[in-house]
Parts: sequence; structure tokens; C-alpha cells
Amino acid sequence: MELSLAQQVLADQPFSRLIGARLTAFDEGTATLEIDIEEHHRNQQRFVHGGVLSYAADNVLTFAAGTVLGPGILTRGLTIDYVLPARAGTLRATGTVTHHTARQAVCSATLEMVGPNGAAVCAVAMGTAVLVRRGDWGARDGG
Amino acid sequence: MELSLAQQVLADQPFSRLIGARLTAFDEGTATLEIDIEEHHRNQQRFVHGGVLSYAADNVLTFAAGTVLGPGILTRGLTIDYVLPARAGTLRATGTVTHHTARQAVCSATLEMVGPNGAAVCAVAMGTAVLVRRGDWGARDGG
Amino acid sequence: MELSLAQQVLADQPFSRLIGARLTAFDEGTATLEIDIEEHHRNQQRFVHGGVLSYAADNVLTFAAGTVLGPGILTRGLTIDYVLPARAGTLRATGTVTHHTARQAVCSATLEMVGPNGAAVCAVAMGTAVLVRRGDWGARDGG
Amino acid sequence: MELSLAQQVLADQPFSRLIGARLTAFDEGTATLEIDIEEHHRNQQRFVHGGVLSYAADNVLTFAAGTVLGPGILTRGLTIDYVLPARAGTLRATGTVTHHTARQAVCSATLEMVGPNGAAVCAVAMGTAVLVRRGDWGARDGG
Repeated sequence: MELSLAQQVLADQPFSRLIGARLTAFDEGTATLEIDIEEHHRNQQRFVHGGVLSYAADNVLTFAAGTVLGPGILTRGLTIDYVLPARAGTLRATGTVTHHTARQAVCSATLEMVGPNGAAVCAVAMGTAVLVRRGDWGARDGG
Repeated sequence: MELSLAQQVLADQPFSRLIGARLTAFDEGTATLEIDIEEHHRNQQRFVHGGVLSYAADNVLTFAAGTVLGPGILTRGLTIDYVLPARAGTLRATGTVTHHTARQAVCSATLEMVGPNGAAVCAVAMGTAVLVRRGDWGARDGG
Repeated sequence: MELSLAQQVLADQPFSRLIGARLTAFDEGTATLEIDIEEHHRNQQRFVHGGVLSYAADNVLTFAAGTVLGPGILTRGLTIDYVLPARAGTLRATGTVTHHTARQAVCSATLEMVGPNGAAVCAVAMGTAVLVRRGDWGARDGG
Repeated sequence: MELSLAQQVLADQPFSRLIGARLTAFDEGTATLEIDIEEHHRNQQRFVHGGVLSYAADNVLTFAAGTVLGPGILTRGLTIDYVLPARAGTLRATGTVTHHTARQAVCSATLEMVGPNGAAVCAVAMGTAVLVRRGDWGARDGG
């Protein structure tokens, strides 16, 4: 797997640049996305907004699926359970392929807040991506 | 229901300001959130990023739940099905309370892209919010 | 819509006969399934087993999708939220098409326990079905 | 963990006796449920009915949660993705605790059809269970 090519796809997502996400791992069956939590990620209660968590889940599930299906995929949907309010530190989302065929991949994701005192799970997610166009990560037109 | 008080809660969410969301309806059992789609909402395929849709679903489900439970709530999680890639126009998310007790509300949401040629559904979602602190929208400390 | 043809499909499901389900409505965009709760539907706490509720949700979502897509469909998955333990009476599951194209339908379902004192919602669900083979309900090979 | 006590809880579920399920593993953080597929588990297309799969997911998620929370729990809901139609053999559902606190457990489940030619995944699920009454498996009044 080519981490640098997948990182370029992330850099080609204007919304991921707005959020400030980085891809730190991209290997057969797994991908990791990280976001350093800042003021603009919060809700009115000072927690990390659920929308930041659902973005991270959506994107890491898709990148995880991409490690086995290639870049030409669409995510059909996802389910996310928020297990603990997230406050400060780095949000680390890890996606894993649970099962896949040549055309679709079911993935799970675990979201953790990582800080000086360790990591705490804040959300768990599941989602499915399907192949819409064959290709590999070098093609640079992927998704 | 006080639309202006709920709009103030939205304005108190830094992440919603980053996204550029506005609350256009907030009535007993229903709420509507709108986002004018711009370049920074897109993914590398030029579609609206799934994370924008999941943010809108998360937030409108929560506001819809808030119309019956008040502002002191937490969303436990959500499921979103992306039914059509979203491209341009205004994203309009409508949340509706499907069932609620005094302590929790199950809500559904429909997300549409609205443009000069009408509206097209791009995602459907479902989620549950629970009361964590009693209060009303005038309290301004809610969420 | 032909209720009697859809009822014949239900009768052709051995598992639905084991459960004891009946289809009481089948109209454009909606379907209703009912189960009279008996001893063999219960769990060890004397509640209706979650598996009975998830069966009813799965099947009524599929029949609702079938009202707009025809019988040649597969359900891709579902999400169910149990909102209240179900005890006695008749379980009534109502499925509604939320959005559909020519090839897929997103549906929602509300499950209620109906008794002498009225109806109480016990679960809410959402799911998507996709067309795998064109046909109509008269074909008798459907599902 | 006491497999025999958990098996007694399963035996106390009339619906699980109707289905014909057996619990074959029950260890810290994981549980396995098996069903030998028979005629009465099928739908009109001769596949295993989705309701059998959703029952197995619901129950194995709950037992997996029970390995860390004890028997006094309720399952709040679940999401299941059907990835491949299931035909013949033994349905084996494996539940795993993904994350838990003292009061709730998020679990995932993988459902496989096991036959003479090996095992094939037919569904993947995720769900959350919450503690409603403290107790241990020896109490025999659990859930």
C-alpha cells in the first residue's frame, strides 16, 4: 500500500483540509486518520462536535475499504455510536476491513481521544463501501 | 418553540460556524438545517463530502430531539444511508421526531440537495438522543 | 397493489410461518405485518425477544420496499433501536418507503405493541433494499 | 466465565428454543451462537431468512456484552449488514466486545455459514447493550 498516494487523495479533499485531518497509516485492511482538536471542532458544550466524529468515521471507513478495493469506491452509509464525549487532544480514528469481496467491503472503525494520559475510546462505527470504478491509487483520479 | 434561541445554540457551536450551517425551522417535533455548498465542502471527486452529510444529519437529529426534550441532551449515535451523491446547491436537512418519551427521542432525517431544478434526496438517517440535564432553550447553557 | 399476492409470498416463507406473522396491508409505499405474541416469542425476562422485533423490522421493511420495487429484491441491512421492552398483545410493524429510485428503496419501520389499552411504540428501524431481478408480484417466484 | 450458566439463560429463552440456537462459547469479551439451518429458517427464495440472521446477531451481541456486564442487561439496538445470501450448513455468529465501561458495552458480530467447504461470512453487525441491574450469571434471574 502506498501511504503517500492515499495522503494525496486526502489532500485533494477540500473538506478534509478544512477539518485538518491527516492520514497516518494505510496498509492492507486498515487505515488511520488523525485530527488535532482545536476550538473550531467544538460544539456549544465544549465537546468535540459529533459531526467531527462522524466525518472521521466516514473517511477512515472509506480509506480502510480503499486499501482492499482501490480508490474508485463510494461509501453506502455508516452507523456510529458515540460512547464518551470527546474533549481535548488528538482524535485518532482507526478503520479496519471486517469482510470484503472484490466489489464491496464492510469496515469497522474505532475513534479514540489521545492525550498525555493515554487513549480513550469516544466512538465506534461500522460502514460499507462499494466499488464503482476499478483502478489503483497511482491513478490520482480516485476517490 | 423559540427558533431564535435554538439558532443561538447553533451559533455557539464553533464547528457549525466552520461548516456554515443555519437553522431555518425549529418546531415541536421537527427542525431544519441548511448549508449552502461551497468548494470547502467537497471531496476529491467534487461531490459533497460524506462528512458534511453526516454532520448535517447528526446536528439536525439532535435539534429535532431538542424540540421535545430541551437543550440538555446528548446524541447516542446515528445511522446514515447515502442514497445519491450530492453536488451543488443548498443542502437541506430535515429532522423529525419519530418517537419520544420524557427521557429519549428517536428521530429520522432526510437530506436533500435543493437547486433551481428542485430538490433531490441525497441521504436518509436515524438517530437517538437522550436527556442528560433538564432545562429549556432560554437557559443558553444548553446543548 | 395486490395484498393477496404479497400474502402468498409471506406464506411461502417457512420462517414467517414458524413465527406466525401475517401481512395486513400492502399499498404503494407502505406495508403492515402483525404477530400475535405467544409464549414462544419471549426471552428469559418474559419480554418479546429482540429477535422477534428484528425479524418483524426486516420483513416489513422488505415488503414496504417491494411495494415500489416489485418482489425481486434483497435487503442490504437494517438498523433497529429498541425503545421500550415489549410484553403482550399484538406486535404491529408498519414499514414506509422514505425514498426510492428505480433500483433501491430506503424504508423506515415503526413497531408497536397493540393491546386493549392502545398502542405503544417498542422499536424503530431503517433499512435499504435493492432490486436484483425485475418482475411483478403476480410472478409468484418473487421475494 | 461460566458457559453452562449462560447456556441455561439461552435455554430459558422460548424464542431461542423455537429457533434452535445453541451457545458454544462464552468467554471474557466474546460469545458464539450456532444454528443448524433447517427448512423452517428459510425465506421464499430458499435463503436463510434475514430475520434468522438478525436474531442471531441480536442474541450473540447481547451474550458478548453479558460476558463483561453480567446478565442484567438490555440491548439498545443493532445494525446489521447482510453481505451474502446464506444457504445451507450451520450459521455461526461470533460476538466480540469492542469497547465497554462498567455500564455499557459496544459489540460487533460476524455471522458465517459453516459447511463442508469451510466458512463464508454472510452478515456483519454492531450493537450496544446497557446494564439495567447488577448481578452475576449464577443468579439465574438474568437477561
